[in-house]
Amino acid sequence: MELEAVKKLLEKGEENAEAMEKLPPRFFERLVMKGLRVDLIQPGRLLCSFTVPSRLLNAGNFLHGGATATMVDLVGSAVIYTLGARTTTGVSVEINVSYLDAAYAGEEIEVEAKALRVGKAIGVVSVELRKKKTGKIIAQGRHTKYLAVSSKL
Amino acid sequence: MELEAVKKLLEKGEENAEAMEKLPPRFFERLVMKGLRVDLIQPGRLLCSFTVPSRLLNAGNFLHGGATATMVDLVGSAVIYTLGARTTTGVSVEINVSYLDAAYAGEEIEVEAKALRVGKAIGVVSVELRKKKTGKIIAQGRHTKYLAVSSKL
Amino acid sequence: MELEAVKKLLEKGEENAEAMEKLPPRFFERLVMKGLRVDLIQPGRLLCSFTVPSRLLNAGNFLHGGATATMVDLVGSAVIYTLGARTTTGVSVEINVSYLDAAYAGEEIEVEAKALRVGKAIGVVSVELRKKKTGKIIAQGRHTKYLAVSSKL
Amino acid sequence: MELEAVKKLLEKGEENAEAMEKLPPRFFERLVMKGLRVDLIQPGRLLCSFTVPSRLLNAGNFLHGGATATMVDLVGSAVIYTLGARTTTGVSVEINVSYLDAAYAGEEIEVEAKALRVGKAIGVVSVELRKKKTGKIIAQGRHTKYLAVSSKL
Repeated sequence: MELEAVKKLLEKGEENAEAMEKLPPRFFERLVMKGLRVDLIQPGRLLCSFTVPSRLLNAGNFLHGGATATMVDLVGSAVIYTLGARTTTGVSVEINVSYLDAAYAGEEIEVEAKALRVGKAIGVVSVELRKKKTGKIIAQGRHTKYLAVSSKL
Repeated sequence: MELEAVKKLLEKGEENAEAMEKLPPRFFERLVMKGLRVDLIQPGRLLCSFTVPSRLLNAGNFLHGGATATMVDLVGSAVIYTLGARTTTGVSVEINVSYLDAAYAGEEIEVEAKALRVGKAIGVVSVELRKKKTGKIIAQGRHTKYLAVSSKL
Repeated sequence: MELEAVKKLLEKGEENAEAMEKLPPRFFERLVMKGLRVDLIQPGRLLCSFTVPSRLLNAGNFLHGGATATMVDLVGSAVIYTLGARTTTGVSVEINVSYLDAAYAGEEIEVEAKALRVGKAIGVVSVELRKKKTGKIIAQGRHTKYLAVSSKL
Repeated sequence: MELEAVKKLLEKGEENAEAMEKLPPRFFERLVMKGLRVDLIQPGRLLCSFTVPSRLLNAGNFLHGGATATMVDLVGSAVIYTLGARTTTGVSVEINVSYLDAAYAGEEIEVEAKALRVGKAIGVVSVELRKKKTGKIIAQGRHTKYLAVSSKL
């Protein structure tokens, strides 16, 4: 691909620029979370599900890796809340995701988050996305958070 | 936090459900990319910049970790194109991101992607987000892709 | 710490230099594997155990993070073999490890490796180290390998 | 490979078991560090070098991924010391490494560690291993540490 084409590819977002400007604050998070259902909450464990919507697809027409990472972030943060009364889930220190299979529009996905360790300062959770029908793993990630945010990192 | 509150937190996306349903396919990607400017393209290196928009903020009012991961995905993929005529940038195998500082609405950010290795089968790139004013690193990540996608993973 | 002290810290390995030179090839791997017992082998799953030896401790007198990462590498590679007749387990593409608890000398540890996906080209496994007595997780990691090594990465 | 062969592969460390038992505490760390030379120390940056010894090779006869991860751990920890008088470099929270090229016995390698962020509680460093002759990157990793270890994680 020529360099000019790379530039075009990255800057293609410029269509519909005006409508984009008017979107409310934190719209990104709502775009990803919309349609997520919580199926089970236990201390240290969360099970959610959603149907892959077309708005979250990538150029290959399957669930966008960035949307998957955002779920690892959000569902991974929520599971920390299940372990006690906190006023904050802290700030993200590290997120990693392995992509194992493609999830196509309309597929039913379950998201399982487990607390691996939640201490006073550091929380680490794992998050796995699976196809509901077959149990096949789509992605597995971990999310590390710093929980004592009142003090300085 | 009580378990019921966790459920509400995760399912809050249900407001404006109808408007959300009408969004076009792949809107997620455009939401993140909109406003990204390519400042420099070299073989194996890309330098972009953007102003943090309010739509990409998180609950703490700084750039969402999922949006950062999505940029590591997208800008990291684009840098693979700069290394030759490909018809695909492959599929993501792994993405990891360390979050180092908060970026607030209106801040100017530069995104630098570098190809660490791009072979026939595997491509690995690093992506760094920095504050333009101070050079302070906001996030650093790596993105591993499988490039020979015609054959089976 | 003064810069000169950092230098001394890193170069302290120079004691016993001669004995070190005479160690056989690949001694590193044997040093970590020695004492590892395989308790269960199933297709796609391996369960091993070992007693933390003093030779693998770090400056804090608990299991060295580098030794843990080496087990993620080695046990994670072995689990790929359980899925069929291969002449190679490929080459490592990425290894990541979260450290969750300290394991002290004499503690009994179990290591569980699971294949998350093993295709023709890419294999991804997860590896978890736990204390046998309490089930407490010491570390959890993932290992990504490129399996089709006859062709070029 | 048959399951019995996997068992043999993992348990092969049992040769020379007695000699292994007599190794001094923390021998693992010395095995990896021996031969490492510190070439440059600056606040927040360390440059080291070593010649790949045969004792650190893997089954493929190139530098073991576990040895590389151990260097990311150790050199990454040392760079935190360069930023001020500390009595500890904290404990490891996460280590990740991308493997980009093979390093064979006798090759000259340089290791560069950079502090990405070192705060009161969290330190994040990047570590890169390169071939001295060509500058080719062998591995790139990041190491996250929790620095305020007197308090509980």
